[in-house]
Amino acid sequence: MPESNVLVIGGGPAGLEAARGVADLGYRVKLVEKAEQLGGMPILADYAALTPNMVNAEEAMGEMVQRIENDELIDICTSTEVIGVSGSSPELQVSLKGPGGEEDVQAGSVIVATGFQHFDPGKETQMYGYYEFDDVITLVDTEKMLKAGKFVRPSTGEAPKQVCFIQCVGSRDRQIGNPWCSKVCCGIATKEAIEIRRLLPDCRVFIFYIDMRMYGFWEDEIYWQAQEKYKVNFIRGIVTEITKRGDQVVVKGEDTTMGRPVEVPMDVVILSVGMEPSEGTTKMAELFQLPSTHGFIESIGGALNTVVTSVPGIFVAGAAAGPADLEDSVSMGGAAAMKAAAFLRKANLRVA
Amino acid sequence: MPESNVLVIGGGPAGLEAARGVADLGYRVKLVEKAEQLGGMPILADYAALTPNMVNAEEAMGEMVQRIENDELIDICTSTEVIGVSGSSPELQVSLKGPGGEEDVQAGSVIVATGFQHFDPGKETQMYGYYEFDDVITLVDTEKMLKAGKFVRPSTGEAPKQVCFIQCVGSRDRQIGNPWCSKVCCGIATKEAIEIRRLLPDCRVFIFYIDMRMYGFWEDEIYWQAQEKYKVNFIRGIVTEITKRGDQVVVKGEDTTMGRPVEVPMDVVILSVGMEPSEGTTKMAELFQLPSTHGFIESIGGALNTVVTSVPGIFVAGAAAGPADLEDSVSMGGAAAMKAAAFLRKANLRVA
Repeated sequence: MPESNVLVIGGGPAGLEAARGVADLGYRVKLVEKAEQLGGMPILADYAALTPNMVNAEEAMGEMVQRIENDELIDICTSTEVIGVSGSSPELQVSLKGPGGEEDVQAGSVIVATGFQHFDPGKETQMYGYYEFDDVITLVDTEKMLKAGKFVRPSTGEAPKQVCFIQCVGSRDRQIGNPWCSKVCCGIATKEAIEIRRLLPDCRVFIFYIDMRMYGFWEDEIYWQAQEKYKVNFIRGIVTEITKRGDQVVVKGEDTTMGRPVEVPMDVVILSVGMEPSEGTTKMAELFQLPSTHGFIESIGGALNTVVTSVPGIFVAGAAAGPADLEDSVSMGGAAAMKAAAFLRKANLRVA
Repeated sequence: MPESNVLVIGGGPAGLEAARGVADLGYRVKLVEKAEQLGGMPILADYAALTPNMVNAEEAMGEMVQRIENDELIDICTSTEVIGVSGSSPELQVSLKGPGGEEDVQAGSVIVATGFQHFDPGKETQMYGYYEFDDVITLVDTEKMLKAGKFVRPSTGEAPKQVCFIQCVGSRDRQIGNPWCSKVCCGIATKEAIEIRRLLPDCRVFIFYIDMRMYGFWEDEIYWQAQEKYKVNFIRGIVTEITKRGDQVVVKGEDTTMGRPVEVPMDVVILSVGMEPSEGTTKMAELFQLPSTHGFIESIGGALNTVVTSVPGIFVAGAAAGPADLEDSVSMGGAAAMKAAAFLRKANLRVA
């Protein structure tokens, strides 16, 4: 009989919801997180506020963590990685490497919730000068500043007068091998644009985009608000080059709505970097022999079976399965909890 | 002790997944569907293929139905409506009206999965001439034809030579009171465009859009395929009027990328109608006293709690909560099953 009914790998939104769900159904959970603390990307990357409701990221994720921290059915192992696996569900032996060294644990079922990493805009494309110019930063760098309650030009420490976002950096880009749309960057850029305008009412903010993908209620909650209340300028266009002129960075490209070339000096350029499978997702796909699409773990059954993988007893949730917003991650975490518990019930395994 | 642990209202993708999940966790389910058969919109509106993988809608939904049909824990009631409710979870009395008349049943928890209805393009906006011109049809009318393996001009029964889709009909439209983006119409129009091009290789197909919202892998799976393999013409533009000239309909508007007015004769114009809360969703919101946003049932906790409503024991899944794609509906159905079972477990109610 396994020590843990379900091993949840990854302590971000999907993993936290999955762990809580499994325990709420009466099954034992071991939650393994590689980082020192739970919360996933919103915490590890210092997000300021979450889309679309602009709730404080630390508080919101803190509440998710708190709900599972004192649950006697949940064993939380931070600073711990999954390094090996043998056997098959419901009789898996999983090797963990944590602060106390290596240990082998048994598990009946596994939920992989190892998430994404942000595209590195210097690694695969040089066109935006991310490592060259101090004032070219990313969505993530911006979150860190916003979390600290400020927004400044990195090169001078002063408030910028003109800022732009460039969408689809590392997304919808077949040349670098990332043909997918990362789903959330339009919303996050627009949220950050609103936050910058709130902090710096004199700063002009532009967003260069291909399509603004503010699906569902985000259209209303974020997109219109940004345009009407916060006067964010949305420019449909393609940016081809970023250069330096004096102490500013110059964005060159084409405004496709106006049909003319643009060349605008900016104090800060923010690259809206997309999602790639995280290192953990790549490793878990390999370890558990899960087929993947573009490196993200595949679920079987397409749209009608979102968390079931081709390996019995192994489920996937959140951005480990592809670009996902918080709603996707939480719904999938809940669905994976149900599937894992149902799998164990069928196998007649329960440690209560 | 309640006769059914969980009452699932609605037999579409979300409700089917919810019912299956609850039963897989060992709880009794009563699944109530207003229509004569299960399957929800994909079946009731005669969808041909599902987005994004183009699987046959009847087969795919048939598999979902089949999985629950012989489950002894699931009591399926078609042609049945919920007409009243009293008490509160976990001791609810729910009045049903079915083929055999009215009956009262007890339930511990409820999952509302009553979905959406398609925007009626003749009801609130006259500009597209839907009820005026035979050759102006909707995405749904098109699905019916595609399901029958054909695509013809309704006015003549002949194969069209030139067809266009108009996006965002009844969506992103504050004048008619539908400010939300319906999330799936870009994908569905593009899928139908591909299907038309497969059936009629000589027919030119255009899609007039504001933003093409092909998020996640749809970008790769549908959007690029449509452009490159099937030569569908995507035109960023605003359509302002549809008139008649001879035996064709003329689409007038502006191509915003080229910055010029367009006036193109079409054999068939397809309106990409969006999602509105269904009549059932409106009724259930009222009956169970669930707060709503634009008529869709609100979940509490925003992005981090997608299926929990403000009323204890009552959960929501799928398009009843807002525009949703199939993945959203299935993940939410699974998550709602987990929450409902966990709610009953906590209340110590189980009829096994």
